[in-house]
Amino acid sequence: MPVRAHCENPDRRTLADLIREYRPGYSLEQRFYKDPEIYKAEIKSIFLKHWMLAGHVSQIPEAGDFFLFEFDVESVIVVRTKEGAVKAHLNVCRHRGSRICLEKEGRSKLLTCPYHAWSYDLNGKLMTARQMGTDFKKADNGLHPVHVELVGGLIFVSLAEKPLSLAGMKEDLADVFETFGFDNMKLAAQKSFPIAANWKLAAENYQECYHCAPSHQEYAKVHAMALSKEAFAAHREKYLAALAGKVRTQESPYYFDQAKAGEEGYQYARNPLLSGMESGSLGGKGIAPLLGTIAEFDGGASEFMVGPVSFFLIYNDHMVGYRFTPTSHETCCCDVFWFVRGDADEGIDYDLETLTWLWDITTQSDEEIIVNNQQGVNSHFYTSGRLSEMESFEQHFLNWYLSSMKDSISNTSKGQ
Amino acid sequence: MPVRAHCENPDRRTLADLIREYRPGYSLEQRFYKDPEIYKAEIKSIFLKHWMLAGHVSQIPEAGDFFLFEFDVESVIVVRTKEGAVKAHLNVCRHRGSRICLEKEGRSKLLTCPYHAWSYDLNGKLMTARQMGTDFKKADNGLHPVHVELVGGLIFVSLAEKPLSLAGMKEDLADVFETFGFDNMKLAAQKSFPIAANWKLAAENYQECYHCAPSHQEYAKVHAMALSKEAFAAHREKYLAALAGKVRTQESPYYFDQAKAGEEGYQYARNPLLSGMESGSLGGKGIAPLLGTIAEFDGGASEFMVGPVSFFLIYNDHMVGYRFTPTSHETCCCDVFWFVRGDADEGIDYDLETLTWLWDITTQSDEEIIVNNQQGVNSHFYTSGRLSEMESFEQHFLNWYLSSMKDSISNTSKGQ
Amino acid sequence: MPVRAHCENPDRRTLADLIREYRPGYSLEQRFYKDPEIYKAEIKSIFLKHWMLAGHVSQIPEAGDFFLFEFDVESVIVVRTKEGAVKAHLNVCRHRGSRICLEKEGRSKLLTCPYHAWSYDLNGKLMTARQMGTDFKKADNGLHPVHVELVGGLIFVSLAEKPLSLAGMKEDLADVFETFGFDNMKLAAQKSFPIAANWKLAAENYQECYHCAPSHQEYAKVHAMALSKEAFAAHREKYLAALAGKVRTQESPYYFDQAKAGEEGYQYARNPLLSGMESGSLGGKGIAPLLGTIAEFDGGASEFMVGPVSFFLIYNDHMVGYRFTPTSHETCCCDVFWFVRGDADEGIDYDLETLTWLWDITTQSDEEIIVNNQQGVNSHFYTSGRLSEMESFEQHFLNWYLSSMKDSISNTSKGQ
Repeated sequence: MPVRAHCENPDRRTLADLIREYRPGYSLEQRFYKDPEIYKAEIKSIFLKHWMLAGHVSQIPEAGDFFLFEFDVESVIVVRTKEGAVKAHLNVCRHRGSRICLEKEGRSKLLTCPYHAWSYDLNGKLMTARQMGTDFKKADNGLHPVHVELVGGLIFVSLAEKPLSLAGMKEDLADVFETFGFDNMKLAAQKSFPIAANWKLAAENYQECYHCAPSHQEYAKVHAMALSKEAFAAHREKYLAALAGKVRTQESPYYFDQAKAGEEGYQYARNPLLSGMESGSLGGKGIAPLLGTIAEFDGGASEFMVGPVSFFLIYNDHMVGYRFTPTSHETCCCDVFWFVRGDADEGIDYDLETLTWLWDITTQSDEEIIVNNQQGVNSHFYTSGRLSEMESFEQHFLNWYLSSMKDSISNTSKGQ
Repeated sequence: MPVRAHCENPDRRTLADLIREYRPGYSLEQRFYKDPEIYKAEIKSIFLKHWMLAGHVSQIPEAGDFFLFEFDVESVIVVRTKEGAVKAHLNVCRHRGSRICLEKEGRSKLLTCPYHAWSYDLNGKLMTARQMGTDFKKADNGLHPVHVELVGGLIFVSLAEKPLSLAGMKEDLADVFETFGFDNMKLAAQKSFPIAANWKLAAENYQECYHCAPSHQEYAKVHAMALSKEAFAAHREKYLAALAGKVRTQESPYYFDQAKAGEEGYQYARNPLLSGMESGSLGGKGIAPLLGTIAEFDGGASEFMVGPVSFFLIYNDHMVGYRFTPTSHETCCCDVFWFVRGDADEGIDYDLETLTWLWDITTQSDEEIIVNNQQGVNSHFYTSGRLSEMESFEQHFLNWYLSSMKDSISNTSKGQ
Repeated sequence: MPVRAHCENPDRRTLADLIREYRPGYSLEQRFYKDPEIYKAEIKSIFLKHWMLAGHVSQIPEAGDFFLFEFDVESVIVVRTKEGAVKAHLNVCRHRGSRICLEKEGRSKLLTCPYHAWSYDLNGKLMTARQMGTDFKKADNGLHPVHVELVGGLIFVSLAEKPLSLAGMKEDLADVFETFGFDNMKLAAQKSFPIAANWKLAAENYQECYHCAPSHQEYAKVHAMALSKEAFAAHREKYLAALAGKVRTQESPYYFDQAKAGEEGYQYARNPLLSGMESGSLGGKGIAPLLGTIAEFDGGASEFMVGPVSFFLIYNDHMVGYRFTPTSHETCCCDVFWFVRGDADEGIDYDLETLTWLWDITTQSDEEIIVNNQQGVNSHFYTSGRLSEMESFEQHFLNWYLSSMKDSISNTSKGQ
């Protein structure tokens, strides 16, 4: 018989109780997906701490070029300085707090607040502020800086005061970045999918392919990962053996709860497509110039992730990036990025609609799936359910998540 | 002078305080119509406990036919099984909680979750779930069952673990169900009216006819109940005397606080229309074939209710059903159902627009009235007002409501 | 380096803590602009206490004419009685709380509730209520009265039980009201601007002209106040000297924290336009007949305010009124009123579009500015910023606001 404990009494359990009561091998309890207080703790412990993909250097080639990266209540200005560096600042004027940049992207010599015209240079230094009296110190009123790291041309930001290290990841994966020509890619397209669900349901959806066969027939025609656990393992073993010497096959499984101490989590893995498939496209044929030093289609794709919400799928001829960010405790945004060789010309070397087809259609399906998941989870009768053998990566995410939330409690005086 | 106590201090009174301070003969205090915590207690004590009208067997004639009944955060699948029974299940997958049925109605051999393809039979038994490991027990992972009772062809559901009994009601009113041919009706139309007000303001509106004369001129031209208390009583006495031997006149007043112990509340009563009127229509003439064993129009209509939010008005030639369900603490839905003889053909025996006219127009008016009521109740200056002599049925509702909420407190350790 | 204290720990500070920690010379902390509990305290301590502009007598010339003044959850009926007086009542029926007047303005002999037809006369006295039993007292069930004061033809209301006095203001400024012919104005236009920001950000925006030069070029072409503090002071000194004997130049600086004990705050001040400018218009020329006893354009305009949220700018030929009211803790409404001489004919003596142009365009700009301000203030990284020398009036508002909130705490047993 179903357990109806939730209906019996008001739930007075603390976040610490909920974490303690988690049953490994099961999905999270309802409150993790609904409770505004837990959401507040997540913002602090996860989104104001970890590295997230902001965008790509090809979006801001010239000095003064900027774009905004936004999540929850935050807006970050990512900008190319006169010196050619990539910098990031909070989009919050130090006078009375107004947004400074109102457009999603643009070019500007100075960052000037539209309210009272306080003006900052591209490094965030306050340059002009009228009528502020003699004891006002401009040097104390620069824009709040945000940490930036470039991974190839990918721009990662961390809003933490002291961010986790990315150095180990960069050293470990230097050969991967070279093989796929990370320093010579460009962003070909980006699309935002707002989703009426808690961000974790979206992130979990990305982390398991148990749903791929029933939900994503387009994906399942190309990727071996939609197969059963056993069939995929057999397929992969054969593929990796044949690949020797071409693309790195050695896995780096330092993701989520397997991250090294003091370092941001990351993963690299090489996986097969189905026999005869070359790339993530309708029909599975290649759709863009080969990346980096890749000489020919080899029937595989690499998984790459950095931090908790930024994921990449590297085909031989293009790369797809995924980022999941919360917009409230019950809504989130999934941003999809498509990357190609930096010297590829749209309309000549690749067709934009062809390039984006598979992951556009797949994300549209996921958007619907995730909303339906949230609606069911909202029920008084939802209970944590058993995870399948194809949801082991998701289990690592859940372990890491609960551990992060536990740290968040012990870092405050009395828990949430 | 008006009492302005509300403005003086923050209101720290508990639900128990509010219940204790209720003055009989008056409307409820503001917080009952606004407070999200009180709403949570109501869901538990009322909507997850009592019987509610879900729909009618004529909506699901064939095996695999289903429709959804939804309120608050809940969705219930009501389905016809292969064995011909009517069953109901929570629309929540036992894996990770997704909604299973996404359409409001349909037909399906299996109830298959669109996310990971867990598949249940029409009785809610888990049939297939891939890659779940050897220790997974399908038998423990069936859909959460919901209790179903048929009253004639009306489908009632209760989400309680141990529902209240309907047996006494069924025995008592067997003659009524026969007279009006409950087992041989069909649902001719259904319409949902979303209302931007707390559900109790909508339910209360249905429970008094003090507003009928000023607000519902179309109704008042047909129904004697819109008259003053004294005029209606006189009219009724005369009508019931003349009716002897035709339709049951004996009242069953077991509604709300007058329900028998352990049983769901219900009511049956026979009331007159105005002289010369036959049915609830424009002009008051009959508009559909006579129901059950009714031989001729007799100038009356019966009130029938089961549980707290399901009401019926049985004319000689058709029946109108009303159901009030919350969608949040400040919004609700009023669903109106029109029933006719099962063998009546639309377009030949009755015209749909003619059939639905009176209660469509009346409910549209009520929707506006109820929203205006909520807006005034929201004021800091709203104070409980004195009920009229024509609001005695509403008083029973309020008594029952407060008593139910009181029980809810004593069933939990510390109240809300 | 930026202070990131907010991210470290949940904010458990009380309202009293926040008030105590305020740094003079700086903007308020984030929670004053976001916290629903602080908003509740503001409603009680500010909006249910102080005088606010409701409208103008020219809106209700005949007996039974009424209009609604609405803010937060409140609706006030302002009505002309048979005796010719202006009265105000809460728009809340004493029966079950329904709104009585549903239209924003109209004419009616009685105020009749559309729900159950309880009917009140224009003085708010309950006249008819059917079926209420013998012990019901109509005299105890009149509409909740709202205090009204006329200032010239301006209608002010206070929802307080014992309002602050306006007598001193009326005596002090009698000559001003005469000069500008307050008793002989009419409302020519009114426009509402809903703003997705806390009401204080809108009020603060009106209270400083530090933003005028960068944000309002149309205003800055006419008004000297957009100049720097020093330039404006020089301009003003010269202007006031030249004005002797024409319009009152003596300031009444009893605003906000400078109000006299027991009296509502108010201000009067005379300020210059830029050289050659006559009125607030495109090009700065006069656009309507001169007000009151004004004989010729004199190149200035008067500031006049009553209470915390009602402001007036009196040109020689027309007057603009501003009112800021909250609609929730995160939204507000700015209402702009344009007044002209009572005998001026639209289309002949003035053109409506010409009349309203400057402050319509300026308020549209402000609406955008204020929303951007709120968005930045919402950031975890927003910190109180230093006010400029041109924000001294805003500083008085902040001082008064914090003092009002402090009083609100000491008037309740345990603070918020």
